[in-house]
Amino acid sequence: MPPSTRLEHDFLGPKPIPEHAYWGVHTARAVENFPISGTPVSAMPELVRAFGFVKKACARANAQLGVLDEAKAVAIRAACDHLIAGRFHDQFVVDVIQGGAGTSTNMNANEVIANVALEAMGRPRGDYAALHPNDHVNASQSTNDVYPTAVRLALWQGIDGLLEAMAALRQGFEAKAEEFRSVLKIGRTQLQDAVPMTLGQEFSTYAVMLEEDEARLREARALIQEVNLGATAIGTGINAPHGYAELACRILAEESGIPVVKAKNLVEATQDTGAFVQLSGVLKRVATKLSKTCNDLRLLSSGPQAGFGDIRLPPRQAGSSIMPGKVNPVIPEVVNQVAFEVIGNDVTVTMASEAGQLQLNAFEPIMGWSLFKSIRHLSNACLTLNTHCVAGIEANHELLARRVRESITLVTALNPIIGYEKAALIAKTAIATGQPVDEVAQALGILTREQIDALLVPEKLTQPLRLEMPEGLPGTNPATSPGSRP
Amino acid sequence: MPPSTRLEHDFLGPKPIPEHAYWGVHTARAVENFPISGTPVSAMPELVRAFGFVKKACARANAQLGVLDEAKAVAIRAACDHLIAGRFHDQFVVDVIQGGAGTSTNMNANEVIANVALEAMGRPRGDYAALHPNDHVNASQSTNDVYPTAVRLALWQGIDGLLEAMAALRQGFEAKAEEFRSVLKIGRTQLQDAVPMTLGQEFSTYAVMLEEDEARLREARALIQEVNLGATAIGTGINAPHGYAELACRILAEESGIPVVKAKNLVEATQDTGAFVQLSGVLKRVATKLSKTCNDLRLLSSGPQAGFGDIRLPPRQAGSSIMPGKVNPVIPEVVNQVAFEVIGNDVTVTMASEAGQLQLNAFEPIMGWSLFKSIRHLSNACLTLNTHCVAGIEANHELLARRVRESITLVTALNPIIGYEKAALIAKTAIATGQPVDEVAQALGILTREQIDALLVPEKLTQPLRLEMPEGLPGTNPATSPGSRP
Amino acid sequence: MPPSTRLEHDFLGPKPIPEHAYWGVHTARAVENFPISGTPVSAMPELVRAFGFVKKACARANAQLGVLDEAKAVAIRAACDHLIAGRFHDQFVVDVIQGGAGTSTNMNANEVIANVALEAMGRPRGDYAALHPNDHVNASQSTNDVYPTAVRLALWQGIDGLLEAMAALRQGFEAKAEEFRSVLKIGRTQLQDAVPMTLGQEFSTYAVMLEEDEARLREARALIQEVNLGATAIGTGINAPHGYAELACRILAEESGIPVVKAKNLVEATQDTGAFVQLSGVLKRVATKLSKTCNDLRLLSSGPQAGFGDIRLPPRQAGSSIMPGKVNPVIPEVVNQVAFEVIGNDVTVTMASEAGQLQLNAFEPIMGWSLFKSIRHLSNACLTLNTHCVAGIEANHELLARRVRESITLVTALNPIIGYEKAALIAKTAIATGQPVDEVAQALGILTREQIDALLVPEKLTQPLRLEMPEGLPGTNPATSPGSRP
Amino acid sequence: MPPSTRLEHDFLGPKPIPEHAYWGVHTARAVENFPISGTPVSAMPELVRAFGFVKKACARANAQLGVLDEAKAVAIRAACDHLIAGRFHDQFVVDVIQGGAGTSTNMNANEVIANVALEAMGRPRGDYAALHPNDHVNASQSTNDVYPTAVRLALWQGIDGLLEAMAALRQGFEAKAEEFRSVLKIGRTQLQDAVPMTLGQEFSTYAVMLEEDEARLREARALIQEVNLGATAIGTGINAPHGYAELACRILAEESGIPVVKAKNLVEATQDTGAFVQLSGVLKRVATKLSKTCNDLRLLSSGPQAGFGDIRLPPRQAGSSIMPGKVNPVIPEVVNQVAFEVIGNDVTVTMASEAGQLQLNAFEPIMGWSLFKSIRHLSNACLTLNTHCVAGIEANHELLARRVRESITLVTALNPIIGYEKAALIAKTAIATGQPVDEVAQALGILTREQIDALLVPEKLTQPLRLEMPEGLPGTNPATSPGSRP
Repeated sequence: MPPSTRLEHDFLGPKPIPEHAYWGVHTARAVENFPISGTPVSAMPELVRAFGFVKKACARANAQLGVLDEAKAVAIRAACDHLIAGRFHDQFVVDVIQGGAGTSTNMNANEVIANVALEAMGRPRGDYAALHPNDHVNASQSTNDVYPTAVRLALWQGIDGLLEAMAALRQGFEAKAEEFRSVLKIGRTQLQDAVPMTLGQEFSTYAVMLEEDEARLREARALIQEVNLGATAIGTGINAPHGYAELACRILAEESGIPVVKAKNLVEATQDTGAFVQLSGVLKRVATKLSKTCNDLRLLSSGPQAGFGDIRLPPRQAGSSIMPGKVNPVIPEVVNQVAFEVIGNDVTVTMASEAGQLQLNAFEPIMGWSLFKSIRHLSNACLTLNTHCVAGIEANHELLARRVRESITLVTALNPIIGYEKAALIAKTAIATGQPVDEVAQALGILTREQIDALLVPEKLTQPLRLEMPEGLPGTNPATSPGSRP
Repeated sequence: MPPSTRLEHDFLGPKPIPEHAYWGVHTARAVENFPISGTPVSAMPELVRAFGFVKKACARANAQLGVLDEAKAVAIRAACDHLIAGRFHDQFVVDVIQGGAGTSTNMNANEVIANVALEAMGRPRGDYAALHPNDHVNASQSTNDVYPTAVRLALWQGIDGLLEAMAALRQGFEAKAEEFRSVLKIGRTQLQDAVPMTLGQEFSTYAVMLEEDEARLREARALIQEVNLGATAIGTGINAPHGYAELACRILAEESGIPVVKAKNLVEATQDTGAFVQLSGVLKRVATKLSKTCNDLRLLSSGPQAGFGDIRLPPRQAGSSIMPGKVNPVIPEVVNQVAFEVIGNDVTVTMASEAGQLQLNAFEPIMGWSLFKSIRHLSNACLTLNTHCVAGIEANHELLARRVRESITLVTALNPIIGYEKAALIAKTAIATGQPVDEVAQALGILTREQIDALLVPEKLTQPLRLEMPEGLPGTNPATSPGSRP
Repeated sequence: MPPSTRLEHDFLGPKPIPEHAYWGVHTARAVENFPISGTPVSAMPELVRAFGFVKKACARANAQLGVLDEAKAVAIRAACDHLIAGRFHDQFVVDVIQGGAGTSTNMNANEVIANVALEAMGRPRGDYAALHPNDHVNASQSTNDVYPTAVRLALWQGIDGLLEAMAALRQGFEAKAEEFRSVLKIGRTQLQDAVPMTLGQEFSTYAVMLEEDEARLREARALIQEVNLGATAIGTGINAPHGYAELACRILAEESGIPVVKAKNLVEATQDTGAFVQLSGVLKRVATKLSKTCNDLRLLSSGPQAGFGDIRLPPRQAGSSIMPGKVNPVIPEVVNQVAFEVIGNDVTVTMASEAGQLQLNAFEPIMGWSLFKSIRHLSNACLTLNTHCVAGIEANHELLARRVRESITLVTALNPIIGYEKAALIAKTAIATGQPVDEVAQALGILTREQIDALLVPEKLTQPLRLEMPEGLPGTNPATSPGSRP
Repeated sequence: MPPSTRLEHDFLGPKPIPEHAYWGVHTARAVENFPISGTPVSAMPELVRAFGFVKKACARANAQLGVLDEAKAVAIRAACDHLIAGRFHDQFVVDVIQGGAGTSTNMNANEVIANVALEAMGRPRGDYAALHPNDHVNASQSTNDVYPTAVRLALWQGIDGLLEAMAALRQGFEAKAEEFRSVLKIGRTQLQDAVPMTLGQEFSTYAVMLEEDEARLREARALIQEVNLGATAIGTGINAPHGYAELACRILAEESGIPVVKAKNLVEATQDTGAFVQLSGVLKRVATKLSKTCNDLRLLSSGPQAGFGDIRLPPRQAGSSIMPGKVNPVIPEVVNQVAFEVIGNDVTVTMASEAGQLQLNAFEPIMGWSLFKSIRHLSNACLTLNTHCVAGIEANHELLARRVRESITLVTALNPIIGYEKAALIAKTAIATGQPVDEVAQALGILTREQIDALLVPEKLTQPLRLEMPEGLPGTNPATSPGSRP
């Protein structure tokens, strides 16, 4: 045995473990088996903390039900408190992408907790006769219940942070909607000029979308709260004493402050990853809308000379290594990319969920990792979008006003007066000749300039309104339009 | 002009239309423009009926608010009743995959309704001066509000059917869970033998998964109920009289019997397709779980000689053109394929949603069509799975019982008595030698045959239980296990 | 037995079959089992024809190797010729989405061919003692070799059509590139104005993208040519005589005119669906680029007043039921939607491929159907895009010319003369003040108007060029720029 | 200005930079703007090295064409050599997920190279008048050509490693195919017992799949070799001297040893990301097949008592924290998860590619990062699968032999002798009664035991063979079978 190692063994045989390591033989084998991404589980501190909460709750429940003696339970709980406080996270060295349905992460936690506790008990690492990773730290547990429970706790916390980030961004859009409340502009459908609206109305939609997504995310979070702690191996509760599941879940909620509830059917809950698919679907929805919003911001700020130019985004960095003075919409662009990643992650989660077999889904690690990335990146994307972009957006007042004045699409409002077909004739002629609408209408003998001026007041056209011919002006009736039949 | 045609025109010019056609110039142009899938809108009868409801509700609201004279409104309503009753559906000839954000479907509806109404009014088709597709049938409307509203109504009905099909399938699984309540078997995790359970527990999970999915689908349906009728072109309500949106939505709910509600922010609702993404995500979740369930059924029935063989599926057809007597799990297989299709459709819906720009999403037709297919195929899949497969499943009683008797994994239950490490030693030896567990335990001097017999009663192991050494038998303590340190 | 039926049986028992039907008991059971999409296999005429070719080739090979007597072989070949000629396609009634790895389609073909042949032999339908669907039509065959072979033949033909449609579209873009060869414009990166180019250069990229995609598609087609005919059940060739596989493949190539080749390892070829995944991936690539191209066309034609307005698409239909005169880019929009569908189909194909197990992939029907739709819709999309959009595109000459004249981004070309930092100063000032670049450069004392005029000739800037200070003009050196360090 | 900082500026203003940093103002702004994933560009060492090669090639070309004086060129080249040698990688601090089409990574490289060179020139960091990141390091370049070029170089290297890993795995399977050459077993289609084959044939398919995937990957790599170096901003080559593109590409190939070639149409090549989509599609194909292979390995090794049990995977770690002695297929499971990730990444790449607009795709960073992860994880997955699983697989000889002896599916081989229908009768009866095939055939009076024994020799059934009645045995003729018509 090399110096500075201790010898641990499992049923496959003995294995030297670095003396300093709090992890043990199971972790060591997993590290050898899964050299995939190079990213260790410690990259998800929420998950390590969640294991702290879960193992602590189990120790308390076990002690209370007589499965674990008080001394051991106290030692385990103290070790868990270290994890919760952010200590020993560097001991979670297993790759985030791992086979075995999370067993390696669970055993990593069991071993670290055991050895931290042993140290506190004044015993050497690896002295598992005094406190055993499986028999004591993992008592009344299986990976198949504690791992998904911990993943859910971690996701719950992540969702919380995402909700905050989304709320901040929403408020950013709301502030802009208020600021731009009276800024008239021409709306666009299918990238073609449509009817008038305010820039405030446009920005309010981004806020509303976020608000609705926050509601959806809260619903998905409620599903995540349901845990299968106490299910042990396959949901039947084998090796857990009567009443343990209820007790452990109750203590877990108390310790973590997260309102977890025990699933009704533990066999089902142990194999079902539907809540992950649902959450991923909602994150995909959030991503889809954020991406649409950022596409809009990039379109609206296109230019400065040859684009839409409705708004200006705050310049954040030089846009080009070759084109001097160019400023690009880099913040919306990074959000788009996060969205594409999240949408891809959703496919990963879906495939992993579909691939579950019989009493367990072996592919929860990739689901957890994918969801973790989606949540973290979306949170960061919302925050940078709000701070570095939305907050500094300015309207291009002059251009917007000019376009409204000159817009041909105002003829839409004349439909109720002159009918769709005559209005179309005016529009078509105006586009072809470049003449203003009022001149065309006059030239075609459809309306007088006075009628037009009295009717087409853009400010009125941004709300429900069916024009009627103002009194004192000679009327027109669409029903008398000649129709299409000769 | 060729014989048997009438001449219609739009602002692009005149166009001959077959005399017999109830559709007109706008539909004719769309048919030319979109020769894509060969599948006409009439393949979605729910959508045609939904247009009947929407146009009828608008006509009533228009009449009530003085926008439409009573005679025209009555004629339009009667024409809509024909659509609702399933007549004139063959007149919806535009391709289901179409550009233009649904304008062609809306104009197809406007034209058919106008001409059906004109016929009832004793006027020739195309006599639009008497009743105009745009000015009257489409009064106070835009494609951008009526099309998504109709799509939602159609989806709502489809979801209703899917919920019924899922409930039927759930009940099928529930009946089997009850039937197999006492059938002991060995559970499996990661395709490796795990601890005992009942076949009833296994089948109950499929029922519970469906039950939860039904709940999710109802939530998604609630989002679909929110419509933007009255929004007109971009949500500002231009060309619709005051109070129209509320009134039209109320009448629509009344006429259709579907509890539609008006969206709060119509500008947002007009461009947002989040409800479609959410619905698609939930359908994907349903598909994912159904596929997992069918994977399980195929695994459990694998064999007959060289597979799992826990259950037998009812034979439905000869499985092979070359291997006589072969019976394949064709019903689960077709459900798997529907699931793969639905998951693919979800990507289509997501991309289409993300691609929306500014005040409108131009890609609603492909979303509607994809969702329609997902819903219909899932409904049919659930029904055929229930009727042609689940209802006839039989347990392989003898084999299951023998496997439980001989199972090595029963040692799991001994953990609390002898500790994980000694239990692992028994298991490993039993697997290697092929000897039964009780003999191995005896040979290794860990437990006596009497102890084993008293402890390992499979029937007890399918529920929460932490074994303790029965009284009168000499005990053993895992804490005295030697541990891993020399 | 009801009148007008005949009784057929398989090993599940007897079943009445409509007297008029050429299909038999196996088809009847499949129709009952798979009421999924309502679309029958006859919706893929290429597949029915392909079965004609495959079954004919097998009959010839069987006769030549003494497995089938000449009379039967002749009758089978004649029946196959009917399928190839497009007759009896309505007899292919099994749903396109079906369980059973294509067995039902194969048996449908076996039965139709047998009964068509029996009719020609003067015998009643169902007289299988005279000619048996399995023993004779399917002799030396299994679904597991003939079905994928037929699907490949059908796809090959579909790809051929797609290649033609892509070539037509490419030529459409090439013609426009030539037409717009000298039209100067400002390029855009990240939706922000970039440096000058010609509209011809812009359109040529769309042609080049298609050209490259055609090459990729030809590569994918070459993989599709490899068939496993002769593999029978699992690739070992059981029940096929020696030399049959080679002979049948050779005859198939001869009969169909499609250069099919026998796969080297038939066991592998029977279970591997990699060629479908590859083809689907290439179709997805085609879709991705077509969608990007259409996004560009929609952007470039945005307006008419508040958009990019570089080009005008030909108006194809009224764009709005409410906004008169509005013309939307409906043709690019429908192509976008086809692209989204194809990208979704790729996920379906991928999942189905991944789900294959051991010696067979049971999910080939959904792969075939998805690929069939992708190919057909892409073909139609290319054709409508070319005919109804690209061919009629016009440049907005005046606007493009004005923008080039006034563009600030021309300062990019000054980098080699004055350095990036001074050029950025000019650009920034010009944007902020709205002043032209030459005036700003003068005012900042960086260059004279004469220098600017001599340097910034847009026509020269659309090709590799590193400006140098023209002779006779006082030079400037970026290396003397002050740098960033105080 | 805080101590230990220097002040740099860009056209947005001044910014303090840590004195020790080799990066400068542009990098600093990017770090602020993109706090997304926390993973810096240095996590892709291949990309940093690739930038070394690209910038070095550009410096050489610039010097040769007189754009850069020799002293500066030499300094730049030396700095690049440091990057190539793996030094200064920690200076690449920009997030892998970044807006701006890679400008920030390019500017990070420009700044690091400039400052490393300045240091070697004996000048302080930030003394850009002596050597400027844009004017000199980036001379004749734009992000839009150097970034995609560097990404391609990096991917090329990654693909090389993946090809090696796949070849190693293929050889692992080939060795097993050879080892299991004579091990008879029953094949399975649709999870139901099919006809005999050898375990060697089964394992050879995994080798062949990899071989074909290697070929596809080489084809995709050939597309990656095509670079747009010299295109500068939008492909027109603005600011690059005549002949530069050809020269720079030639030098780049020489310096890097990677056979890069200049794209024919640089405008197209600058905006087109088709090669990334193609590569991603091929990686997805590799993933799909690897996942199928691992699904098979997990199925074949299922058990030990209640599964297929054809093979045993080497035990790599304890499979369960609760079930002692349980060994799970953790290596195949981790490969499955990598496959799901790669398939998800493909959707990300596809969406990012589709979202490109006009002259540039702004979303290359997420494409590069996704492809990088896919390649690295697949490589690692292949290596761990080969070393830790395939190499140690053992056949379960006894069980396989017994199953072949007893298999009912052997009747398939009798089709040519007795016809499909009689064979089906034997099979059905044997399954129902549990009697062996020979007894059933005898009891039904179809064949004698001697005939059966002479015919059904499993060893012969693993290759093309159409049984004929052995001489001296009374024959039987399928054509005399009664048929289905009464």
